[in-house]
Amino acid sequence: MTETSAHFWITAAILAIAAAPVAAATTVPSAMSAETAECIACHADQTTGIYQQWGGSKHYRANVGCYECHKAEPGDADAFEHNGHQIAIIVSPKDCQRCHATEVAEFNESHHAQAGRILGSLDNFLADIVEGNWSYYGGSALTVSGCKQCHGSVVEVEKDGALSPATWPNTGMGRFNPDGSIGACTACHQRHEFSAAQARRPENCGKCHLGPDHPQAEIYEESKHGIAFRAHEADMRLASAKWVLGEDYSAAPTCATCHMSAVRTQDGDLIPVTHDVGLRISWNNRPPVSVRPEVADAKLGLEKMAEVGWEERRNNMKQVCGVCHTTNYVANFYDQYDGVVALYDSKFGQPGTAIMAQMRKDGLITPVEFDEDIEWTWWEIWHHEGRRARHGASMMAPDYTHWHGLYEVAKHWYSEFIPQLQQIVEKNLRSDDPAKVAAADRLRTAIDELLARPEHAWYTGKLSAEEMARRKAAQEDFKKRY
Amino acid sequence: MTETSAHFWITAAILAIAAAPVAAATTVPSAMSAETAECIACHADQTTGIYQQWGGSKHYRANVGCYECHKAEPGDADAFEHNGHQIAIIVSPKDCQRCHATEVAEFNESHHAQAGRILGSLDNFLADIVEGNWSYYGGSALTVSGCKQCHGSVVEVEKDGALSPATWPNTGMGRFNPDGSIGACTACHQRHEFSAAQARRPENCGKCHLGPDHPQAEIYEESKHGIAFRAHEADMRLASAKWVLGEDYSAAPTCATCHMSAVRTQDGDLIPVTHDVGLRISWNNRPPVSVRPEVADAKLGLEKMAEVGWEERRNNMKQVCGVCHTTNYVANFYDQYDGVVALYDSKFGQPGTAIMAQMRKDGLITPVEFDEDIEWTWWEIWHHEGRRARHGASMMAPDYTHWHGLYEVAKHWYSEFIPQLQQIVEKNLRSDDPAKVAAADRLRTAIDELLARPEHAWYTGKLSAEEMARRKAAQEDFKKRY
Amino acid sequence: MTETSAHFWITAAILAIAAAPVAAATTVPSAMSAETAECIACHADQTTGIYQQWGGSKHYRANVGCYECHKAEPGDADAFEHNGHQIAIIVSPKDCQRCHATEVAEFNESHHAQAGRILGSLDNFLADIVEGNWSYYGGSALTVSGCKQCHGSVVEVEKDGALSPATWPNTGMGRFNPDGSIGACTACHQRHEFSAAQARRPENCGKCHLGPDHPQAEIYEESKHGIAFRAHEADMRLASAKWVLGEDYSAAPTCATCHMSAVRTQDGDLIPVTHDVGLRISWNNRPPVSVRPEVADAKLGLEKMAEVGWEERRNNMKQVCGVCHTTNYVANFYDQYDGVVALYDSKFGQPGTAIMAQMRKDGLITPVEFDEDIEWTWWEIWHHEGRRARHGASMMAPDYTHWHGLYEVAKHWYSEFIPQLQQIVEKNLRSDDPAKVAAADRLRTAIDELLARPEHAWYTGKLSAEEMARRKAAQEDFKKRY
Repeated sequence: MTETSAHFWITAAILAIAAAPVAAATTVPSAMSAETAECIACHADQTTGIYQQWGGSKHYRANVGCYECHKAEPGDADAFEHNGHQIAIIVSPKDCQRCHATEVAEFNESHHAQAGRILGSLDNFLADIVEGNWSYYGGSALTVSGCKQCHGSVVEVEKDGALSPATWPNTGMGRFNPDGSIGACTACHQRHEFSAAQARRPENCGKCHLGPDHPQAEIYEESKHGIAFRAHEADMRLASAKWVLGEDYSAAPTCATCHMSAVRTQDGDLIPVTHDVGLRISWNNRPPVSVRPEVADAKLGLEKMAEVGWEERRNNMKQVCGVCHTTNYVANFYDQYDGVVALYDSKFGQPGTAIMAQMRKDGLITPVEFDEDIEWTWWEIWHHEGRRARHGASMMAPDYTHWHGLYEVAKHWYSEFIPQLQQIVEKNLRSDDPAKVAAADRLRTAIDELLARPEHAWYTGKLSAEEMARRKAAQEDFKKRY
Repeated sequence: MTETSAHFWITAAILAIAAAPVAAATTVPSAMSAETAECIACHADQTTGIYQQWGGSKHYRANVGCYECHKAEPGDADAFEHNGHQIAIIVSPKDCQRCHATEVAEFNESHHAQAGRILGSLDNFLADIVEGNWSYYGGSALTVSGCKQCHGSVVEVEKDGALSPATWPNTGMGRFNPDGSIGACTACHQRHEFSAAQARRPENCGKCHLGPDHPQAEIYEESKHGIAFRAHEADMRLASAKWVLGEDYSAAPTCATCHMSAVRTQDGDLIPVTHDVGLRISWNNRPPVSVRPEVADAKLGLEKMAEVGWEERRNNMKQVCGVCHTTNYVANFYDQYDGVVALYDSKFGQPGTAIMAQMRKDGLITPVEFDEDIEWTWWEIWHHEGRRARHGASMMAPDYTHWHGLYEVAKHWYSEFIPQLQQIVEKNLRSDDPAKVAAADRLRTAIDELLARPEHAWYTGKLSAEEMARRKAAQEDFKKRY
Repeated sequence: MTETSAHFWITAAILAIAAAPVAAATTVPSAMSAETAECIACHADQTTGIYQQWGGSKHYRANVGCYECHKAEPGDADAFEHNGHQIAIIVSPKDCQRCHATEVAEFNESHHAQAGRILGSLDNFLADIVEGNWSYYGGSALTVSGCKQCHGSVVEVEKDGALSPATWPNTGMGRFNPDGSIGACTACHQRHEFSAAQARRPENCGKCHLGPDHPQAEIYEESKHGIAFRAHEADMRLASAKWVLGEDYSAAPTCATCHMSAVRTQDGDLIPVTHDVGLRISWNNRPPVSVRPEVADAKLGLEKMAEVGWEERRNNMKQVCGVCHTTNYVANFYDQYDGVVALYDSKFGQPGTAIMAQMRKDGLITPVEFDEDIEWTWWEIWHHEGRRARHGASMMAPDYTHWHGLYEVAKHWYSEFIPQLQQIVEKNLRSDDPAKVAAADRLRTAIDELLARPEHAWYTGKLSAEEMARRKAAQEDFKKRY
């Protein structure tokens, strides 16, 4: 062994040990296994790309090879015999936790791990029924190539041991694996390099957190944080095994920095890296009205996270912010963010939810979702546009907060939602069914009460004298100053 | 000559020879021409930028200078006298093929080369007539700055030898050049460095493959492939003269990797680079209903490509996939992709096309496109949204497949297209013209037959008992598991 | 001092002096101040991130530290006592101009500096009233997290000296600072590195120039310029103190290159860097109908810029273009761009503006904006889509010019705006109020006259024989050639 290569191996071993959790310290092999060597004999030529990717990985440097990850127990549902070895294609969190026990345990407690459970929601009704048909293995091809690519499939093993195309390829975050585990580490740590550097980059989260209903990737790119990252990639030390904000880098934060990674706080404490992404989030902006994350976690049966209140989670995040921002700055930022959440919720989210529920209960709309125009209108107001506004404010991206966000909410509220409600009133007031007439009357009252609120007075032309004076004064003030 | 510069020139010469096709080996000049030296005497100062770009190019290192590319024959339509030399501004594929004969020949056989022919389509009617007027050199300024920038103009030479602003600047893929050739190598190989590295990058294709109707650039960025590229740019060896996937790099694929570039296959074979981009594509998702590429190529008169069936093209692509993915994986992926194409085509593309044709034939809509609402609705369903869904599935970008794709198709199908059809029925049933009434009756029958198909039963509230049971069971199953 | 560090300090000093304007030469401190050293004693640990960012800055190398920027006069509205020193959180242009007098002076004369004055516009009515309520410190939380993040807040100091969350954090371009100055240098030069390299990058401008109504960032990315930048970042010398196009780099232009930075022209002249971004812009495409920038600047009271005509500004930009493009090319490009502006303005912008004004004057729509559908339609035609078309053409991004731009304009013009006008006519013709009937009649006449223009004849089915012949010939010609 040359001096250089000896040095390489010693360094590699130290790095591997340093990065491994305690439980794994004894499992780092001292040499490449005979089985992996057998795999490589063919696969170095046959699937050169993944062989080379693995060759650049920390796994390779730690003698963790093909067989160490892909070996299966004979009883595993997706095990198959391959040149004398029991192999499985899917490497599940159950496999990964042999070495990465802490990370898998944290993931299992997280909202992320429950991503598969969103199926059965309105989103799923859309994908399965409204967009789909029953011609793709009895289901919707759209659900397979759409929803489940992020949320996770229920992987099915066919009689011959192959994985059903209706369920795999799939790297959805909440995948149900044949071995009973949930999750897909490859959702973030792409095969076959499993690079931490890659998972720390913002694009990585954009595989799922992108698009009209959850444009976090686009929002980050517009924000000061995204701009700083693009300008300072070279200073980010993304490939460093130890990656502590304020210690190893400070040029910019990525998604991982704020939501998951280690931070040296203002007080000198170390907040460790976590694979439970909910620990620093203080609003869940997914539903029509924002809820606190511990409420959502409780509903999902995440017992541990249900005990972690939003105040604690927000304080966690504030520690991250504090590496670059003053306490005053951070407090004011949260005040602004909470303000946008409160505005959306009180002016649009809560009254819209209530009025839709009343119409459903009163039979003014059918029990079937999306067969009436107003259902599409309301859906996009909260599911697309209202989320964009709240997510935009959460990361200080003004065009997502306003133009892509609350501007669209308000446009569709006043130019579609309210007129559609009024059409439903008019149509049902003319009904022969007294119950419908009564329901229409109740809806009319509800609309009137809603529009009588001061924030809608501009629309009904009923601004009070006091409010008109205030508005006029504001306009004059604007004209004077601007 | 110093040792360093001697080494530089030897290396440069080897690189230049290695990169040149066989036909070109004899055309590499041994020194800078006197004419080019003359050009440089002024242009090094006057257009410093392109002089410097050229100075960093392989062309410079191979003594291919200004004159070698820009020289013109006296008979050339766009030739003009410039300081005693016959010069043309446009360097066309006919000029490039002096050295790059293979590349130009491949390009000439490709779908890309026919890009200019799309003009005269509905897209062109939109740009010329609906959006445009006749005030820009007798045509639409929008067509000049919109369509033709990608598709290519018919370059016109004015009486004084200048290129008409209505036709140039233009680097559209299917440009009609004054010398009779088609194409613009600068569509991809930007002046004046003509860098292969740049053409291999994903942004390069985004000049045209971007936006609401063909967002391949955005789709790639969301995909695992795009994420891997951003994380591993430094490992891509983009500037390497030899750039064989599985041999020179394997960190990630770009557009060029999969559709054009050289690949060392699982069997050890070398698939060479090609400038015919259609050789690995197995669906043409441009029309309202997907067609096989050989069908589209035959219509365009591409005789050679008309003989290359989609199975062969798909097999070509599978060889590329095989560098990093197992046979099983690739087969399942194509199964999923075909599933989305079949879903869109059967549920929306085919019936929509049929019903629009029936209405046109029956005179229920005018012969003029886009003067009625339903024409805009149908156009966006297939031309924008349906394409996004199919393209999204082709590259595994779930938000384009679903939220930007089939979700929008279904939303507009049920909330606009079907209601607009029903309005046309109602309006024409009240007509004084018996032919209109009969046509409206036929349309009503067609709508009824369409909506009677099981995939639309959710919308009409007529799910059969069996289907309702299946749906209810599925819902219960979801609730149990999730 | 070692030789290396001595060399470092000398070089740093030279660089600092070279970069500083004349007025600042005497203000570069020779050593770190005692006050800054005091700040660092705590902040190096407490806000490590910004300490480290500053440590990588030119400010650090020039002994410009915390105190030099954050020190306040006792009378400053936002001054507060902090460990014995008068400190202000906001570092305003008034502070920056102690060293950067030229840059601040240029900025003060620019359109950018007036960004705060847009509040009070229709955009602001939307944010404050239509989207907002009065529950966030008496205003709209949306205006705070939306508009003002780009346009600038009026920073308010609370009684305890803290900055009001309704007004800060804020880095809007036209911010009104407590010390009476306007602007926020940190809008572009992010804290605490204030890196020129970062400000020169295209993402930097995307903090504000992005989204449905001003997608300059997206347009740049599609353009050849954006593609060249991504391919050649390493050749851009972004971190060079002297950054002259054609001298220090030529691989690609960024936003800063064309609009602000230094250029060595074809004639060998040096166009210096400017912080007045309007000096090279020849159209202001913000309003419903494009205006020349000097007209807009005069309205804003920018006396110096009101004297700089668009021809001079265009000539400035042409000098930039000339580094890489021929005179002929640049002239033709501007011809194409002007063509798109003229098309939009004459076919849609001017007649739409006139007809909306007539309706408002005639009482056919209420004085309140956005309470009627047609107001939303017209707003998006000019404010979103029409701008995208014009901006797209200005930077040669065909999909923004067409699909995101004039295609959307035309779609909404013919499928929404015209039908909505016709509904207003029909409704008011049935009115009991003779004034409404007369107004409706005038509107009908206006619509008829508008649609009688040749560019709308396709829609009314009244193409003249001559025009039909021309169109048919064009179609035949297309079919023949394509």
